[in-house]
Amino acid sequence: MDCIFCKIAKGDIKSTVIFENNDFKVILDVNPANIGHCLVVCKNHYENIIDMPEELVKEGFAIAKKIAAAVKKATDCDGVNILQNNGIAAGQTVFHFHIHIIPRFDGDSVDVKFGNLNKSIEEISAVADDIVKNM
Amino acid sequence: MDCIFCKIAKGDIKSTVIFENNDFKVILDVNPANIGHCLVVCKNHYENIIDMPEELVKEGFAIAKKIAAAVKKATDCDGVNILQNNGIAAGQTVFHFHIHIIPRFDGDSVDVKFGNLNKSIEEISAVADDIVKNM
Repeated sequence: MDCIFCKIAKGDIKSTVIFENNDFKVILDVNPANIGHCLVVCKNHYENIIDMPEELVKEGFAIAKKIAAAVKKATDCDGVNILQNNGIAAGQTVFHFHIHIIPRFDGDSVDVKFGNLNKSIEEISAVADDIVKNM
Repeated sequence: MDCIFCKIAKGDIKSTVIFENNDFKVILDVNPANIGHCLVVCKNHYENIIDMPEELVKEGFAIAKKIAAAVKKATDCDGVNILQNNGIAAGQTVFHFHIHIIPRFDGDSVDVKFGNLNKSIEEISAVADDIVKNM
C-alpha cells in the first residue's frame, strides 16, 4: 500500500522520531501548526479510530498524554490540543490513524473553533436515542 | 468547587446522557458544532489530560471510539473529529477534562485547521531533543 505513514513507520521515509515502541512511532509534523507539533502514528495501518482495535486506541492516547506533557515542558506553551481527524470532511489528509499533539500559544494563528448551531435543546436532543441505539 | 461539569457528572445539572459508567458520563453538547456533537466527561475533576491518570485517559478515549462509531451511524456524517483541548490558548472553555466527538459533514461551518509555519526541517527539528528529554 502506498501510504506515507506506513513508510515512515517502517523507516523507509526519514522522520524526526520523538518516541517509539512496538505499536507506535511519535514524530514531529513536518508541516507543524506550531513548533513542537507531534504526531502519534500507529505502526500498523488503520484508516481511522473506528477501524482501530480498542487496545491500540488506549495505548495511542496514553502516549499522546505523555507527549503532551513533554511538549508543554519543552516549548513552555500556553495550551495543547489533542486532535484526531477521521475522514476528509474532518480534515484528515493522511488516511492512516494518527493523533496530533499541537502546542498552543496565546494569540497564535491556529484555528480550532466551532460556532453554535443555535438550535433548541429539543432539536439538539432528537438524535440522542439514535446514538444510544447504535452503541 | 463551582464546576459545571462536576455538577453535570453528579446529575445536579440536567443533561442528555448518551452513556454512563463509573468513571465517565457521555452527554450531548448543548452548544453543538453539529447535531450529534458529544462530550465524554470524566466524573472526577481533572483539569486536563496532563493531570489525569493514564488509566482514565485510556478509558476515556476507548469510550470516545465507541461514541464516534455510534455517532457516525446515527447521523450518517462524512467524518468525525476527536478533540480534547487543554488550556485557554487551546480553546478549552470548561476546565474539567472532556473529549469532543464532533460529527462532520462535507461543507459544514466547523473550523479545525492550521496553517503551515513555513519553517525549515532544521528549525522544526531543533525542539526534538528538548521534548525527548522531558519525557
